[in-house]
Amino acid sequence: MNKEFQEYMQKELVELKESGNFNSIRTLESPQGAWVEIEGKEKLNFSSNNYLGLANHSELSKAAQKAIDEFGVGPGAVRTIAGTMSLHDDLEEKLANFKKVESTLTFQSGFNANLAVIPAIMSKGDVIVSDELNHASIIDGCRLSKAEIKVYKHGDMESLREVLSGIDANRILIATDGVFSMDGDIAPLPEIVKLAKEYNAMVLVDDAHGEGVLGSHGRGIVDHFELHGEVDIEVGTFSKAFGTVGGCIAGSEILIDYLKQKARPFLFSSAVTPADIAATIAAVELLEKDDNLVQQLWNNAQFFQDSMKDLGFDVGKTETPITPVMIGDAGEARKFSDRLFEEGIFAQALGFPTVPRGKARIRVMISATHEKDDLEFAIDKFKKIGKELEII
Amino acid sequence: MNKEFQEYMQKELVELKESGNFNSIRTLESPQGAWVEIEGKEKLNFSSNNYLGLANHSELSKAAQKAIDEFGVGPGAVRTIAGTMSLHDDLEEKLANFKKVESTLTFQSGFNANLAVIPAIMSKGDVIVSDELNHASIIDGCRLSKAEIKVYKHGDMESLREVLSGIDANRILIATDGVFSMDGDIAPLPEIVKLAKEYNAMVLVDDAHGEGVLGSHGRGIVDHFELHGEVDIEVGTFSKAFGTVGGCIAGSEILIDYLKQKARPFLFSSAVTPADIAATIAAVELLEKDDNLVQQLWNNAQFFQDSMKDLGFDVGKTETPITPVMIGDAGEARKFSDRLFEEGIFAQALGFPTVPRGKARIRVMISATHEKDDLEFAIDKFKKIGKELEII
Repeated sequence: MNKEFQEYMQKELVELKESGNFNSIRTLESPQGAWVEIEGKEKLNFSSNNYLGLANHSELSKAAQKAIDEFGVGPGAVRTIAGTMSLHDDLEEKLANFKKVESTLTFQSGFNANLAVIPAIMSKGDVIVSDELNHASIIDGCRLSKAEIKVYKHGDMESLREVLSGIDANRILIATDGVFSMDGDIAPLPEIVKLAKEYNAMVLVDDAHGEGVLGSHGRGIVDHFELHGEVDIEVGTFSKAFGTVGGCIAGSEILIDYLKQKARPFLFSSAVTPADIAATIAAVELLEKDDNLVQQLWNNAQFFQDSMKDLGFDVGKTETPITPVMIGDAGEARKFSDRLFEEGIFAQALGFPTVPRGKARIRVMISATHEKDDLEFAIDKFKKIGKELEII
Repeated sequence: MNKEFQEYMQKELVELKESGNFNSIRTLESPQGAWVEIEGKEKLNFSSNNYLGLANHSELSKAAQKAIDEFGVGPGAVRTIAGTMSLHDDLEEKLANFKKVESTLTFQSGFNANLAVIPAIMSKGDVIVSDELNHASIIDGCRLSKAEIKVYKHGDMESLREVLSGIDANRILIATDGVFSMDGDIAPLPEIVKLAKEYNAMVLVDDAHGEGVLGSHGRGIVDHFELHGEVDIEVGTFSKAFGTVGGCIAGSEILIDYLKQKARPFLFSSAVTPADIAATIAAVELLEKDDNLVQQLWNNAQFFQDSMKDLGFDVGKTETPITPVMIGDAGEARKFSDRLFEEGIFAQALGFPTVPRGKARIRVMISATHEKDDLEFAIDKFKKIGKELEII
């Protein structure tokens, strides 16, 4: 390999370590759950997106194992050539019913769903108006589209209006995360939809952290705000509350028909495996049936957030089970996370550049699988360490 | 949804239908195999990338089902947060041994592996030199990198030299598919490596259709040409011969360490599921153990291609089991494919813009799972329809 490049990479890695931004990866020796095994020890798990515990749910496991018996382990091709199995059709139909849309299309990941839809519908001469805190996959989808990208201030409808009012373009798309994963706040979707109508723009919402969490039975942000039929493109992710892996686009029939012909990750990347699709079908069926897990998730979040506030912690502006415990300094946040790990809790510290300077935090991901005892255990530990480090 | 855009999509779909470029998706009602069930009928399968039959192999199925028992259905997070399970580490180690490289990193797909590595190592001021027939995922990876993209004529080393000799850049990357999936020809990797050295460029080869097919035990194109240690970046795909889904980058330890910090689909998209990872581990172990399936694949390809040539068919410039049966006119190729389907054979017609105008073809994907009887059945049908349509 090119020597200069090797030296460049080495230098970059040293810099990341020195600035405290190096990702050290911890390996799980167990399934996802309220508790996980790391380095041979049980840790209370506050780091996963497994909101409902479906990543290790017996009904999903059984469905996946049955699908392997019936369809094997791989799809063997891209969807348009020979990789569409009846399972894929089943999931897309059930998901459309669940999300109350005309049609859906599934992808390898939520990341790929954004890469699929944005460049398929936007191109040169068009303008995408994007929330400044949107997810990396929206940003990459915008980049691939060749459309002009304009950014509005996070969740700020004055700023959005200002940007929209200055646009003279063929086609306009407003793109936003539904739930912002660093703060747990929810996009003001009704206002966005209103502004979109006013300026003849389309709306894309990436519901990664809202699906299975917001709305009746976890139908997502559109259901939460009762905006059915008002949002052009819903991007979904199965790797969060649904407990599996994959992504989807939900919308009108014509949009889905169009994406089947135009979306590059659909045309040029293999279909999702039978096991992953079957497990996702089971997740949708389970959510349709009852919303006990969704309720449990919210009860747990309420209890944990209230208790933390009572202790004097600042949990930011969260409106969801994502609970940022604000620390401030990145070094302090890392120290807090390390101490939690020693005390048996696996919760990530997030610092610059993931969040703004001076806004470092511990991000607690609450799950329906946490028992009250688990949360009380955690609250005690936060109290102990919070005092130790003089945060509270 | 924006009315003008709806009308635009409708118009585009009509145009695709009128030009014969509309993808009609067929749904499989069975696992991948030598024969598949479509619309309730058995069809001989010449359309999958399931080169070795691993997409429905009992050892892979058992491994996937066991992993679901042990690790559940989902990873629950991105790799750097809480989504790395011991399975992922296992696969990456076994794959490094199999491919005889220092280190590997896995992704959600081969498509994502290209999106991960290219923008992580190339940026503004750099130049990517790309074969004109490279896969869509290389093209999208290049676009995301912001590097300048220069294209050389397909497989043409004079053209590559000409492009390289005109470059004045910080960093140069030559990117090529290993096996080109439309014609089945192999990139002249030894010459590419030589030119790369001469011009201090790095080399990336996307081995999607070479892994499990080329080299000893299907180790891939680098092994085929005995170029171990000479190629900077090998991109791999598990959805072809390996029979599962996923992608990987194989290379030096420093490159992999760097990608773990910088590659966006690694940082911002969830880990691969336990079932898919475990099935891929089983595929690697199976290939390490013996290469009977690889041999069977090549025997089948040889027999089929020889028989087709004896009948007077033109199978193009293939050097691999991918067998293009050249027809010429796109309408004729579609007619041929439809007649094959009626006669019990599922083989795709490819026309413009997938292949150049006047070079339409039936693409036959040979697999180790085809029995001699299957191939003879197919050869008879090709003969019958070839005469019917006056191709031979």
